[in-house]
Amino acid sequence: MRKNAVALPGSWHGTPLRVRYQETDGMGVVYHSNYLNWFEVARTEMLRELGFAYRMLEEQGVMLPVTAAELQYKSPARYDDQIRVYTRVSAFSPLRMAFEYEVRRSDGLDGEEAPAGSGDLLVTGKTEHVWVDRTWKPCRLERVLPEQFAALTEALR
Amino acid sequence: MRKNAVALPGSWHGTPLRVRYQETDGMGVVYHSNYLNWFEVARTEMLRELGFAYRMLEEQGVMLPVTAAELQYKSPARYDDQIRVYTRVSAFSPLRMAFEYEVRRSDGLDGEEAPAGSGDLLVTGKTEHVWVDRTWKPCRLERVLPEQFAALTEALR
Amino acid sequence: MRKNAVALPGSWHGTPLRVRYQETDGMGVVYHSNYLNWFEVARTEMLRELGFAYRMLEEQGVMLPVTAAELQYKSPARYDDQIRVYTRVSAFSPLRMAFEYEVRRSDGLDGEEAPAGSGDLLVTGKTEHVWVDRTWKPCRLERVLPEQFAALTEALR
Amino acid sequence: MRKNAVALPGSWHGTPLRVRYQETDGMGVVYHSNYLNWFEVARTEMLRELGFAYRMLEEQGVMLPVTAAELQYKSPARYDDQIRVYTRVSAFSPLRMAFEYEVRRSDGLDGEEAPAGSGDLLVTGKTEHVWVDRTWKPCRLERVLPEQFAALTEALR
Repeated sequence: MRKNAVALPGSWHGTPLRVRYQETDGMGVVYHSNYLNWFEVARTEMLRELGFAYRMLEEQGVMLPVTAAELQYKSPARYDDQIRVYTRVSAFSPLRMAFEYEVRRSDGLDGEEAPAGSGDLLVTGKTEHVWVDRTWKPCRLERVLPEQFAALTEALR
Repeated sequence: MRKNAVALPGSWHGTPLRVRYQETDGMGVVYHSNYLNWFEVARTEMLRELGFAYRMLEEQGVMLPVTAAELQYKSPARYDDQIRVYTRVSAFSPLRMAFEYEVRRSDGLDGEEAPAGSGDLLVTGKTEHVWVDRTWKPCRLERVLPEQFAALTEALR
Repeated sequence: MRKNAVALPGSWHGTPLRVRYQETDGMGVVYHSNYLNWFEVARTEMLRELGFAYRMLEEQGVMLPVTAAELQYKSPARYDDQIRVYTRVSAFSPLRMAFEYEVRRSDGLDGEEAPAGSGDLLVTGKTEHVWVDRTWKPCRLERVLPEQFAALTEALR
Repeated sequence: MRKNAVALPGSWHGTPLRVRYQETDGMGVVYHSNYLNWFEVARTEMLRELGFAYRMLEEQGVMLPVTAAELQYKSPARYDDQIRVYTRVSAFSPLRMAFEYEVRRSDGLDGEEAPAGSGDLLVTGKTEHVWVDRTWKPCRLERVLPEQFAALTEALR
């Protein structure tokens, strides 16, 4: 794959969610580890929109564990807030993927139409991932699932 | 197995833990679903004391999922509280197990020696379980792991 | 309030959600404590449909903590499953509320229209609650928030 | 405070814990957001060893929320593993604190005595924090809690 085959970062995809009571903590805000859970929800939904159910990849023997993550906390989300988690692909190769995230409060915005960049910015972050097989050995997606790799490349173009 | 082979309920085993910030919620107390997590920690530690690493059972192909649970919340645990989760076996057969629990605050008690019944009672509960194989089909523990079954019977006597 | 002022149990309200990776466990299924989190999501959404944001009640100084819960686990939910959590009010008085729940898998059903009783039944449960003030002292909702109490009574009729 | 008043990074403090079933995920390993929960447990225990109950700081009106976090995942922790979370202070001022972490598997090591650097390295990370008051406004610890600030400075020397 030539490096310029895919123009990155890709476009933002927004996933709506509402803060659950279980996600709050004694400070009255969302406990900081939950944003990593939300990042996962957002990239799963983005992959689904691109035509890839992550569940199917796992059923075919390929997993995409997180190898690194970083988060910047700017303002806290609170119980019952309406949230949009925006994500986009920042790196993609036969060996790895990376994503960027923006968590925004979307109260008062029309849920279905809130474009990237709207709403108060609460948290930003990045995650890095490698493709591994069932034994957790790194693998080349283009070899183990060539059709999926081609389709994902196409979807990100 | 004759029903009276094992005298139940068994004796109480206490497991200490300290409330984590992540376990608190916006009311300033431990979120109520976390007590089920603590029940699991407590019965795992009790089984370990009885000579059974639950991990080993799973590695040998037997799992003990929860089929029913109930909880009574009497008083809330709070961040950083020292807690003792007491558990005992209330039912045991080749097909199933059941446990009872008492969650107590143990602040100010000597951690290692707090006997059952000491400390403020916060939550009580029960869980029921069945033995299943890797395909989630119920199984008879005495057939699939006869030595483990005999040893567990002995330990509970 | 006369006991027959409100006809209970009320009607079922369904809340859709999708299983998050974080909610799964090493058995490959949803960890059993997460259903209590989902129950909370479902009763919050039901109250919202009835015109009550639970957040507003808390901001006005009234909380509705869980005093008892029970769950029956019939079949496990799995990663990425589409779920409907159905809930209805089973008891309501100036002092307390109780809810019943059915968690069903709704894959393949039209998400917006799945009626109560459709989809595989995974988990059933109940929760009981009391109205308390900011100091966790039980309170009579009709006294502390008479308008809210009247409106909730009306909504449940 | 002169910048060289405190020699940083400080020394490592290790906190033992055992992986809970609830912390595992469908890949059979610890879900990646849980390491942030463990970081919190570790820094709380380190502060306690230094003579500071974080709970007391909050009761006195000062909180230390996370403003940034990063994690590198090298090898996964699994159910029932014995873990040591090592942490040390990497920055300390009247306005902020930062911590570094190493999560190591300590199976087979003597739990109480495992020195920093022993055991398989699983995850490394950092968190940054600011002191804030009850209204989430940044504050200078030396002004709002001068004795605590002096004692913490002393403890880190």
